[in-house]
Amino acid sequence: MFEKLFHTINQKIQLTKEDLEVIKPFFIARKIRRKQYLLQEGDVCKYTAFVEKGALHSYTIDEKGNEHVVQFALEAGWISDQYSLLTGEPSLYNIDAIEDSELLVITHTSFEEMLSKVPPMEKYFRLLLQNNMIALHRRLSASLSLSAEEKYTKMVNAYPTIIQRVPQHMIASYLGITPETLSRIRKQISTAK
Amino acid sequence: MFEKLFHTINQKIQLTKEDLEVIKPFFIARKIRRKQYLLQEGDVCKYTAFVEKGALHSYTIDEKGNEHVVQFALEAGWISDQYSLLTGEPSLYNIDAIEDSELLVITHTSFEEMLSKVPPMEKYFRLLLQNNMIALHRRLSASLSLSAEEKYTKMVNAYPTIIQRVPQHMIASYLGITPETLSRIRKQISTAK
Repeated sequence: MFEKLFHTINQKIQLTKEDLEVIKPFFIARKIRRKQYLLQEGDVCKYTAFVEKGALHSYTIDEKGNEHVVQFALEAGWISDQYSLLTGEPSLYNIDAIEDSELLVITHTSFEEMLSKVPPMEKYFRLLLQNNMIALHRRLSASLSLSAEEKYTKMVNAYPTIIQRVPQHMIASYLGITPETLSRIRKQISTAK
Repeated sequence: MFEKLFHTINQKIQLTKEDLEVIKPFFIARKIRRKQYLLQEGDVCKYTAFVEKGALHSYTIDEKGNEHVVQFALEAGWISDQYSLLTGEPSLYNIDAIEDSELLVITHTSFEEMLSKVPPMEKYFRLLLQNNMIALHRRLSASLSLSAEEKYTKMVNAYPTIIQRVPQHMIASYLGITPETLSRIRKQISTAK
């Protein structure tokens, strides 16, 4: 169950076998089925989830009932609503499973305790957050300045696995374009090949 | 010169006086005048900058010559292009001063060395990045789902100081709306009061 987690940690920092054993009990293994919620809008986010297997996404729903995808998390990805988790305020997000998934979840208290017990993990999360920040900045720049075509092409190059595994309407929502526009772009690209 | 930096660190973690003395030499004090560049598009980003005094912003320029503001950094803020800094690739961003500013800058090598010398700083940066991620996610959600009015109102509430100190066209660019739209919104709000 901990293979993906330990593998991804060891790509960034060196932990001893003892450290890894210390980390384990802070997590709770949890399976969720496709379409099942990890978090619903209005509830307080209690867990940060690590994806051992499967795929999840977080999204908001606007007044008109449209979904806006905030984030995808596939294997070795982390997902939560950090704002709700840290403040205890009701979440604006929904998080649910796109596929049957196996998770390792951790509460905020356990998370902070784990980091105090295994300080090198601070570095792992600092590096992880650094990478996430870079990706998020690039996405924000893209959303402000690129055309729909350019946004999609960038995403195909950066996240080919997500493009393959996630339904098209979620990709469109993630990019802030309509499913019709995305479908037109995909046809253009496949014709051009 | 280090007042703001030490104050902001001590709000998140407890460092000893000795730790603070260890940290100091890793930084270089630097003054830049209004409109002077810290980083120009096409150059490799060499420094992360902490703002002791003043205000900076990072932005991209698109093919039509339009600026898109990525980030503002006022007192106690950090600014850089982390992607360029970490990969050594030319930056897509410009960073310049909106006001005459006093900075503490640090190279990536010094940054990592500082963290290995003073491990509690890992926690400071992890917490900082966590907060930045939350803010960035909220901004991204706003850019995908809110109206221009709602985006502006949110920004006024979240960052009143930026609204006061930064030229309106930069605020408009940050929100991804035209200066004309922003001007119209501001008039509506002041009339409504």
